[in-house]
Amino acid sequence: MDYAARRDKLRKLIRKSSAGSMLVTCPTNVSYLTGFTGDSSYLWIGTERYVLISDGRFTQQLAEECPDMELVIRKPNVSILQATVKFMNFEKPSSVLIEGDRVSKNEFDKLSVELTGVAFSPTSGLIESLREIKDRNEIALICRAIQIAEKAFVGLRQLLGGNTAGGTTAADIRTSQMTEKQVADALEIQLRLHGAISSSFRTIVGVGPRAALPHGMPSERRLSESPFVLIDWGAREGQYVSDLTRVLITGALPPKINRIYHTVLAAQEAAIRAIQPGALLSVIDESARTVIAGAGFGKNFTHGLGHGFGLQVHESIRMSKGQDRPLKVGMVVTVEPGIYLPGIGGVRIEDDVLVTRDGCRLLSTLPRDLESNRQRIT
Amino acid sequence: MDYAARRDKLRKLIRKSSAGSMLVTCPTNVSYLTGFTGDSSYLWIGTERYVLISDGRFTQQLAEECPDMELVIRKPNVSILQATVKFMNFEKPSSVLIEGDRVSKNEFDKLSVELTGVAFSPTSGLIESLREIKDRNEIALICRAIQIAEKAFVGLRQLLGGNTAGGTTAADIRTSQMTEKQVADALEIQLRLHGAISSSFRTIVGVGPRAALPHGMPSERRLSESPFVLIDWGAREGQYVSDLTRVLITGALPPKINRIYHTVLAAQEAAIRAIQPGALLSVIDESARTVIAGAGFGKNFTHGLGHGFGLQVHESIRMSKGQDRPLKVGMVVTVEPGIYLPGIGGVRIEDDVLVTRDGCRLLSTLPRDLESNRQRIT
Repeated sequence: MDYAARRDKLRKLIRKSSAGSMLVTCPTNVSYLTGFTGDSSYLWIGTERYVLISDGRFTQQLAEECPDMELVIRKPNVSILQATVKFMNFEKPSSVLIEGDRVSKNEFDKLSVELTGVAFSPTSGLIESLREIKDRNEIALICRAIQIAEKAFVGLRQLLGGNTAGGTTAADIRTSQMTEKQVADALEIQLRLHGAISSSFRTIVGVGPRAALPHGMPSERRLSESPFVLIDWGAREGQYVSDLTRVLITGALPPKINRIYHTVLAAQEAAIRAIQPGALLSVIDESARTVIAGAGFGKNFTHGLGHGFGLQVHESIRMSKGQDRPLKVGMVVTVEPGIYLPGIGGVRIEDDVLVTRDGCRLLSTLPRDLESNRQRIT
Repeated sequence: MDYAARRDKLRKLIRKSSAGSMLVTCPTNVSYLTGFTGDSSYLWIGTERYVLISDGRFTQQLAEECPDMELVIRKPNVSILQATVKFMNFEKPSSVLIEGDRVSKNEFDKLSVELTGVAFSPTSGLIESLREIKDRNEIALICRAIQIAEKAFVGLRQLLGGNTAGGTTAADIRTSQMTEKQVADALEIQLRLHGAISSSFRTIVGVGPRAALPHGMPSERRLSESPFVLIDWGAREGQYVSDLTRVLITGALPPKINRIYHTVLAAQEAAIRAIQPGALLSVIDESARTVIAGAGFGKNFTHGLGHGFGLQVHESIRMSKGQDRPLKVGMVVTVEPGIYLPGIGGVRIEDDVLVTRDGCRLLSTLPRDLESNRQRIT
């Protein structure tokens, strides 16, 4: 990763403002600009230099991850805020940008009180706007995180089908008796076996009516209790993540679930067809929403169509109503329409898409049609 | 959990201030006060009522987790901030406490601009101060998270010693050839097999010199490359967590590491002996620091002695220099002195301690002496 190039891009944005410098406090943004993966560290962007204000727990890690950065190492009994004040008193900037969506009200006030000569200007989404456009290296890492997630899912499906090679927690039980939690655990093992550091968020496994909880946590409900299960998962590999959802059909599907499956799939396909540079985020959302509303389930699609991701599972892009800014080449988003019928069940199908000059490229490759997602359980 | 009692305690604190109401925005604090485990939701504490401002993704989860809460469900295209403004315009409070350490500068400013008649007063650590004192139910859940972490560690040690019963990723390799990452993965499996939702933070596994990185991430370094390995891990079970560290001795220990092991252990024991209600946090820290400085390693103990935990791995209590407030009955803290020798290695021993009326109770039970932590690898 070319961290210096990222910092230079940011410096150009800073120069466009009246401020000459910036204090970066969000750990993910510090990591994006320096390569340092620890926390509790702020990045100072002065007119002439970059300085990372960190602490002694990270000395060796800093040397490995960002050997060229100028460092200020605070002592254990000096808070990051105190160290920053001390450093800036020495640096004496007149005006400083600060991440207004990240810095807390109290921290902002303390900095303002302690540094009376400094005018802090809260920004919104400045570094996040840089992060929205992924470069070639980032896309390669995101693709790798997607591939791991997909291999893990294939591994999970083999296991659910009765293939216990490789040794798993499910070796000695009938897979139909696996609980949502055991499915999530088995998928975690698969993710790590295929190279992930971990899952990129807490895996959602929802059997039957629990699939109607868009963010439900795995419970003790068993696969045998319903003919379908929703799985929303992703891999973290290095600093980048993936985010996918499939519904597996494990038995005779009720006609209503069959109907919403095909509606969601059609909505997703309509949205993917609409993705191209210049298209408004809200218009892509609407293209899926129209299909779902047309089938009579408008009120059951209770969230936005998708979101940006990369270093985090949820980054600043939101494809939903009111988001009237355009897609750009290099943006990577999830496309994940869903229909939720409380007490009955839900279907969501989620894939990862890169905006390209010609339109878009589907980065995820797992089959989405219903037949391919029929799953034998033992 | 008696969420209503927690809210009543908070209401008493609110009444002590000049404000009559409070807006709670931190997801963990919302969860602490309501039982709701989702995010993107704010809790309104009015003079007469409690209202959770949430969204449609959580409708069913809200019904399960906090059936008695009064709800405002925002639409997908309405932000949590917009929904809050709309609700408060209806509620018309005159003065409102808000979590100044949690709300962002931008969000605070937007609320202030949109709600011109409302005086927002930023607080610091109000709900966190309630969370510092654990009740009987919370202590039971923390003990369960500790027990799971300990059983998982015992399981890992059996596996490292060559016992592959239960099926693991390490079944077909010599355990001396396991990488730090594979050890972390094997421990994750053990944690989940023993009932954890997941590890409570990204497990640290540091072989040899990498043990000198207090927060290092698991790498491809193999156990065989050094005679010791540091493991810092914990379990999340339900909403509560544990946090432990041990150093396993896998070969002939260099005299210097042997010496720092015994120094760290003596420092930890001195600190645990000093823990009792009324003792200052800084004094407990100092009791360990004195032992380490006396052995000539003062500069190599680069972090505070310990921290509170419960719903989160790091809660508001910090045992370190300058923290001149007293321990209280019901506080739960880690005690984790460490000595780090860059390029050579490090030792940290971490246990979980409850402050009791008589002094303290060690909640964790894994042996800490060096002999008990000698580990056969295959």
